[in-house]
Amino acid sequence: MTEASTKTRILQEAARIFAEKGYEGASMQDLAQALGLSKAALYHHFRSKEEILYQISLLALSELLARGERALEERDPSRALLLFMEGHARYIEENHPFFVAMLQGLASLSPPHREETVRLRDRHEANLRRILERGMEEGVFRRVDVALAGRAVLSLLNWMIRWFRPGGPMRAEEVARAYWDLVLRGLQDGNL
Amino acid sequence: MTEASTKTRILQEAARIFAEKGYEGASMQDLAQALGLSKAALYHHFRSKEEILYQISLLALSELLARGERALEERDPSRALLLFMEGHARYIEENHPFFVAMLQGLASLSPPHREETVRLRDRHEANLRRILERGMEEGVFRRVDVALAGRAVLSLLNWMIRWFRPGGPMRAEEVARAYWDLVLRGLQDGNL
Repeated sequence: MTEASTKTRILQEAARIFAEKGYEGASMQDLAQALGLSKAALYHHFRSKEEILYQISLLALSELLARGERALEERDPSRALLLFMEGHARYIEENHPFFVAMLQGLASLSPPHREETVRLRDRHEANLRRILERGMEEGVFRRVDVALAGRAVLSLLNWMIRWFRPGGPMRAEEVARAYWDLVLRGLQDGNL
Repeated sequence: MTEASTKTRILQEAARIFAEKGYEGASMQDLAQALGLSKAALYHHFRSKEEILYQISLLALSELLARGERALEERDPSRALLLFMEGHARYIEENHPFFVAMLQGLASLSPPHREETVRLRDRHEANLRRILERGMEEGVFRRVDVALAGRAVLSLLNWMIRWFRPGGPMRAEEVARAYWDLVLRGLQDGNL
């Protein structure tokens, strides 16, 4: 196997184990065993367990960012919001272990790695705020606190790690669409 | 000190330590040390660390339930929803360690304790759904998927454990009110 594909396989297996046992609960020994590698071979590819978590987080966040940026290209603010939410939710479904390991692992990263991770997360949130602001500027959305509305959207999506399971009764995209409809139109009956 | 007040003090200190280090990361030795008690004295009050987590979870959930039930007494569905959200959010602010320990500890409980805990959590969620259903029956809320709308409201509130800090720039009640306004009225400009 090539160097790159071994690295990829290590990250995939590590994400699965971190998501399942928690980062703190999983040892390099656990990872080596699951991969059928010696610990020495594992250390040849990654300096430390924390380095593996960091690489997982970078992959997860850069993919989320790419999806958010594609959403931002859509000119209609309501549709851009839907694309953002669908992209984020679909990522959770398609890369569940990566998403869970990243989101739960943040506190375990070294300060410089945490800083870089938070920077990417903030850029993702900034893209969402940009969509909301654009909607307000164009008068499609009413004036609300952008930071809080952005946080609300991400709370809905991120809390999915607590209940959503890929292969369950609902597809992530359906969840995203139902939440989008709720956030967009609210609960209030339009006839009141 | 009376038996009851020692128990209360143990639960408070344990909740604080579980919330900070995680349940798995905290030992009975850590708790005894923080409390200035011997491990034997601690075991006199609680059979095990898991029993302490269970008692913390029961206290947190029964208080959340009580607040939800008070909200349910309000006849106006929009106001009942606001009271439910404010009560839940205020609990997070006032009893932050209990809420965090309960929510993060669920997976660490023994199966019978987890079952009882989930039962209480489901009753709390059922109260919220009752408020939503009532609003729909009365035509105050439009027809939406009640289970999903209830999950959305709880996602918004529960995700607060990831970013809300008591004593920070916003009061929990303000957060709840802003989220309520968003969920009720949505983002869409009413004039469209």
